[in-house]
Formats: sequence, structure tokens, C-alpha cells
Amino acid sequence: MSLLVIGTVAFDEIETPRGKTGKILGGAGTYIGLAASHLTDDIKIVSVVGGDFPEEHMSLLKKHNIRTDGIKVIPDGKTFFWAGRYHENMNMRDTLVTDLNVLADFDPVVPGHACSSKYLMLGNLTPAIQKRVIEQMEPRPELIVMDTMNFWMDTALNDLVDVISMVDVLTINDEEARQLSGEYSLNKAAKKILTMGPRYLIVKKGEHGALLFHEDKIFHAPAMPLEDVFDPTGAGDTFAGGFIGYIAKTGDISFENMKRAIIYGSAMASFTVEKFGTERLAELSQEDIQKRLQEFVSLVAFEI
Amino acid sequence: MSLLVIGTVAFDEIETPRGKTGKILGGAGTYIGLAASHLTDDIKIVSVVGGDFPEEHMSLLKKHNIRTDGIKVIPDGKTFFWAGRYHENMNMRDTLVTDLNVLADFDPVVPGHACSSKYLMLGNLTPAIQKRVIEQMEPRPELIVMDTMNFWMDTALNDLVDVISMVDVLTINDEEARQLSGEYSLNKAAKKILTMGPRYLIVKKGEHGALLFHEDKIFHAPAMPLEDVFDPTGAGDTFAGGFIGYIAKTGDISFENMKRAIIYGSAMASFTVEKFGTERLAELSQEDIQKRLQEFVSLVAFEI
Repeated sequence: MSLLVIGTVAFDEIETPRGKTGKILGGAGTYIGLAASHLTDDIKIVSVVGGDFPEEHMSLLKKHNIRTDGIKVIPDGKTFFWAGRYHENMNMRDTLVTDLNVLADFDPVVPGHACSSKYLMLGNLTPAIQKRVIEQMEPRPELIVMDTMNFWMDTALNDLVDVISMVDVLTINDEEARQLSGEYSLNKAAKKILTMGPRYLIVKKGEHGALLFHEDKIFHAPAMPLEDVFDPTGAGDTFAGGFIGYIAKTGDISFENMKRAIIYGSAMASFTVEKFGTERLAELSQEDIQKRLQEFVSLVAFEI
Repeated sequence: MSLLVIGTVAFDEIETPRGKTGKILGGAGTYIGLAASHLTDDIKIVSVVGGDFPEEHMSLLKKHNIRTDGIKVIPDGKTFFWAGRYHENMNMRDTLVTDLNVLADFDPVVPGHACSSKYLMLGNLTPAIQKRVIEQMEPRPELIVMDTMNFWMDTALNDLVDVISMVDVLTINDEEARQLSGEYSLNKAAKKILTMGPRYLIVKKGEHGALLFHEDKIFHAPAMPLEDVFDPTGAGDTFAGGFIGYIAKTGDISFENMKRAIIYGSAMASFTVEKFGTERLAELSQEDIQKRLQEFVSLVAFEI
């Protein structure tokens, strides 16, 4: 079923202990779209790029059946650019460059055909921009999923809380859940956040997996313990893309199905970190995905 | 089936943001024994206490069907005493006092009836003392489980590696697995440690659960997300006690059964942190345990 993704389509330059990339394709919208494209097919992205954005990258998205006419091209502008360097353990990184470029004046316009998308995935962006997208949707999507980060808690808390009140599913990491709620216990944090609007809260814990909270129910999804993490960039976006992609594929927003969707998201994210940037995500086969899903099943299976 | 536990039986004084105890019953041997006692019945503890150790505490162990004649009483000595203070988030603590007292000269003597115990649980102690116990066992136990900590990696690495080479299951936390192996990736760390002697490695991750490594298999056990952690003291020991208690109850050391044993260990540990010291562990009912186990099943259940 139809999925609209809003998020950055960008250039990244990544340095890890394993090596360094040049300017490669990146951005939350890109990772979300590519991850979802392995699971469902009616996908549109709303974003903005500059005249320097190569046709090759646009073609990659199209090749994955992602409709790109919502990606506005500003011919004399430059594409959003982020550069970062990961520490030895890959759990921490330093941002070296953040050039907003065309993103600085981004006013998202949802193409007419996308306004009635059944599912809306708001990638991490300025909360006011996320809100502008929600306002253009008619009728309201069946499910609105929002990703965000601590940066907006520090700099635009009122706007952030406003958008959070409008969505169904919020995805943040454990430290962000603590910051947003003022509670250290994730149970207590979740209870507070679930009074702020969302009916579902997904707490991402990186190498420790993820927790889904809904009413008084909790689901704990594992992360796949990996031999090597090559490049963590985009793992959280890929997770979100796998999650919403599976929801869009199945059209089922029950708690039981959301649990499955989280496993799909975790499986997709476990691929992304195996190579630089979107490389592994772009080349995945259905067989790879099914095999990884079975590994997740084995990882946690026990009988009492 | 018969289980021998070696570990400290001690006094603890604990301060948390929730309050402060006086001198209460503590020690790895105590937590292991009490946790195991809810699952199996033929349990002996080898330890040492001073003349100040009250009959009331000894009675508590006996009430839980734990045979205590291996706990040597040194009438003019004082019992091992530890005092610590937890930080606000309960994940960090400062040690305020460590008085080894009678533990300083502890030379464990396994009573004749316990030398042939089928299962041996080595609680965290000086590696040389753990080894002295292994040497007294005849025949070799069917399964030897060893708990240890970073302190011995820093101060007695050679002795530690020597004992590790003699055991079947090693339980340490994630940072300790990294320190012992020199590998950041837990997969790589596990592969190295599994060449050092143990056939099974359990990596404890506190609020993030635990991982079991065996050959090329991995099992991920969740931790129960708790509303409040009241006092984390003894959680790791309780985990070990629940684990070995379930193994001793079932007499089955297959990988499949070890997975269940880890869930039992996790369930028992989730009780310990609900009150100060051994309070919650001592009062548990079978119904409490079964209910908590079902909560663990629900926590991770999904179908692909």
C-alpha cells in the first residue's frame, strides 16, 4: 500500500577505522526509501537536492521503484552534505561538516498523487518541516511514524512536542527517550511519552536491539550480534524504513504485526552496517533478507 | 541433581537513592544458593564466615534446603564485609568499604559428601581459590560454571586464565569479555574466549539482557524492562544461581536447555533488584517465578 517518505537525500563523507569514502549517497530519506523498497513497491520520497546531485543517484532510487518527482531539484543550489568520523568502537562519531545548503530553505511540497498515501514516514528533520508534511496529507494517513533526535530536543523542543502530538509511532533511541521524558527507567519514560500523543513508542538501543511500547505491552527485539560493524551510518534510518516498509506491505497495524515489522527493520539495519553507506542495502536480494530473518528467529527462540 | 556452590557469604551495607540498609546478608554464594534453591534441592555451599555471622542468616540458607556444613565458621574472625553506594541511574556504584576479614586466608575445603557433586558453580572469587575447589572434585563434575570479574583480569590474569581453561561455562559482562579478549566485537571476543577452555560463554549485559555463545551458535536473552530498579546488588550472582539451578534440576546440558536456563537466570535476577539485598529472593513463590517466566516468553515472542 502507498507509502510517503519525507527525509534528507544527501551526500555523506564517512571515515571509519576501516577506511574513508568520497562523497557518497546518503540521507535519512534515501536509507528509509531503499530499505522499504525491498518490502513494498508504492513508495514516494519528498525531499530536496541541489544541481550537483548526480543522475546516477536518482536512478538508483528509481531502479528501486521509488517515485522521485517529490524530490525537488534546485539547479543553482548544493545538496545537503554531512561528513563524520567514527571512533574505534563505532559507537561514537564526530561530525566534521554539516552543510545544510538547499535544506536550509526547504519547504516540502507533497505532490498531489502522494497526499493520500496510506502510510507516512517522517525521517529525522526539523520538526516544523515534518509538520508541514502532515498538514498536506488528505485524508490523514492510517499510520504516521516519526523519527527524530536529541538535537531537536535541545533546539526546538516546543515544535518537536507539537509534531509528536500528531503522530502514531515515535522512534527514538534510549538516551533520547530519557531526555524527552526526564525519566531514567525506560518503562517510566515510555509511559510518559505515550501520553504525549503517540500510541506506539519504539526505543532503539543500537547493538542491544529495540523495545516497542504500546499501552501496557512491551516487545523486546534483539539486534544481530555482528562480527564486524563496517559503517553504522544510516542504521537507524534503515530500521525505520524496514519497519514502515513491512507495515505498508501488509497493511496491518496491529501490535502483533508491529512486532514483526520491528524484526524486519532490525534485519534490514543489520545489512546496512556491513558496508559503507547504502552499498549493501542497494544490492540486497530477497534471499538475503529471508535468511537474515530466520537468523533473528533462531537468535531468540526458546521454549519454557 | 547435586550442586556445589562456592562463593562468598558476607555482610553488605548498601546505599541507593531509595535508601540505606544496615549490615545485611550478602555475598555471591548466598545469592547463587538462594536463587538455585527455588529450582533444585540438593545444594551445598562452600564458604567461610566469622564468629559474628548470625544464626538467623545461617537458618535462612537451611530453610531453603541448602546444606551449610561447608561454610567454615572462624569464631574469632570477622565475616567479609562490603559497603557500596549506587549512583542515581543505578548503573554505577562506588565501593565504600571492602574488609576481606576471614576471606583473606580462605582455603576452601570441600566436605567429602560434596566432592562428587554433579554440578559446580564457582562464584566470583580469587581464581586460585576457585581452582582449589576444582582440584578437590572427584570425579570431575559434569558441568563447571565460573563467574569472575575485571578485578582479577587486572590483578591475577595468569591465575585467571589458568582456571578459565578448566571450566565449561564462563559468565562475564560485556566489558569484561572485551577486556579478556582484546576484541571490541562481542562475536570476535566470544570466538577467542571459546578457544581458552570453556565450551560456553555467557555475556551478561545488565539491562540489555545476555548472550550465550557456543560453537557457532548465539542465543540472545532479553532482560525484563523494569519500572524501578531498587537495588542491583547480587543481580549477576542471582542470574548465575538461576542458571545453574535450572541445569541441576533438569540434568540436561544441551544448548537448547542452556537457553532455558538463561531465561530462568534472567527471571530470578529480575526479582532480586526489586528489593534490598536478598529480601525479594528469599520470599519468592513458585507462582511468582512461573508468572515472570511467562512474561519473558511474551516479551520476545514474534512470528515471521
